[in-house]
Amino acid sequence: MIHVVLIGLGNVGYHLAKAFLQAPSVQLLQVYNRSKVSPTLQEELKTEIVNDLRQLKAADVYLIATKDDAVESIIHQLTLPKTRIAHTSGSLPLLETKHYDGVFYPLQTFSKSKPLTYDTIPFCIEAEDAETYAILASLAKAISSKVYPITTAQRQELHVSAVFVCNFVNHLYTIGEEICQQHAIPFEILHSLIEETASKIKTLSPLKAQTGPAIRKDLKTIERHIGQLSNESFKTIYQQMTHSIIKKHENEL
Amino acid sequence: MIHVVLIGLGNVGYHLAKAFLQAPSVQLLQVYNRSKVSPTLQEELKTEIVNDLRQLKAADVYLIATKDDAVESIIHQLTLPKTRIAHTSGSLPLLETKHYDGVFYPLQTFSKSKPLTYDTIPFCIEAEDAETYAILASLAKAISSKVYPITTAQRQELHVSAVFVCNFVNHLYTIGEEICQQHAIPFEILHSLIEETASKIKTLSPLKAQTGPAIRKDLKTIERHIGQLSNESFKTIYQQMTHSIIKKHENEL
Repeated sequence: MIHVVLIGLGNVGYHLAKAFLQAPSVQLLQVYNRSKVSPTLQEELKTEIVNDLRQLKAADVYLIATKDDAVESIIHQLTLPKTRIAHTSGSLPLLETKHYDGVFYPLQTFSKSKPLTYDTIPFCIEAEDAETYAILASLAKAISSKVYPITTAQRQELHVSAVFVCNFVNHLYTIGEEICQQHAIPFEILHSLIEETASKIKTLSPLKAQTGPAIRKDLKTIERHIGQLSNESFKTIYQQMTHSIIKKHENEL
Repeated sequence: MIHVVLIGLGNVGYHLAKAFLQAPSVQLLQVYNRSKVSPTLQEELKTEIVNDLRQLKAADVYLIATKDDAVESIIHQLTLPKTRIAHTSGSLPLLETKHYDGVFYPLQTFSKSKPLTYDTIPFCIEAEDAETYAILASLAKAISSKVYPITTAQRQELHVSAVFVCNFVNHLYTIGEEICQQHAIPFEILHSLIEETASKIKTLSPLKAQTGPAIRKDLKTIERHIGQLSNESFKTIYQQMTHSIIKKHENEL
């Protein structure tokens, strides 16, 4: 049984708590949150929630799932004897505290209102010593079948990649939705295309999967599309992405 | 039984042919292709394939699934008595030929090497008269459960939206893959994130689903990411998308 204390109840912390509660080999001892949580959330998590870092109990691992900016301040406030501490950030380096430091980075997009299947979330693990690595890997394996040893440098690159394939992709969905709304078209018409585009790259490299006016160098369509766009920001994105697709695929010839 | 002649065996034509062959209420009489097709493809389609437009047989509907640029020339070469002709383009207006004109636009990304489930592909139908509309709608319903009446203006907007949510999204996947390859990270680590990002917007509007450094205005992370990117084109896309996310969400406040 791995005893865990979770620090931070944002989108990541919330889902980690939910995942740990489902895992037979993990006991979520306590959760720290800066502010008081709602009675509904308290009820949902069925775990002691504290608002004071001095009240933390003894545990095998302390996971810091706060915003990056808050991690250093949390570390400084901890009054624990030497223990294992990991953060869940895609960006921060391995910490250098007086404890055994690790990284427990779940590569997924988390929103509280969207339930998740935890088993397929990749966990990127790093630690300053082998035993801490082993415990963090066991903790990840208790909730997911995908656990990877990833260095800080790799994790930071993965984080940039994730911004492209998740955050920026979602913004392109937002643009698609806005265009649909402006022309009284149900956004649902695009769901099947969005799903197929995402599913396609599991069997076909995205480089091979590219379709559309840019890769065909169909300048007539490209110009008409740019003419249709009234939002200047969307127009710039259209031009820049088209340029990048053409350039990338010329380089591949 | 609807008798169909298909003109063009590109990515769209190929998949329409495959879909019609599976549909009990459709008979694919003939396929025209500009150049000779491979024996394998000939065998797969089990349909007469001709390379001369003067050899087309009498049918209920002629579907032109060529590149946009070729459609006008195809129309001029047809020597058919008055019949029903539809194109499959997202961009072209309703044609004005001497025939009954229609549009039969499947909103999906087609690659020959990626099998598709045709039943969930949305078909956008338009026609100059009610009877042509009815026949095209029946033809679409024979292969898909999603059939929509869509005007030319709406279809052209849908096409722009599709470029954003499919073609540009796929290019962002390509960038993610390139970053992974450069740092010896298996691209598969990102599959789960890509799938969840696409699946999320079926239950949560993309506007609400946005996560990441841009919407948090996490300037430290944004600056570090920009510093990590060596490809100038990727750097420009990072900056432009970040700017657009911040602007879009400020407007929503």
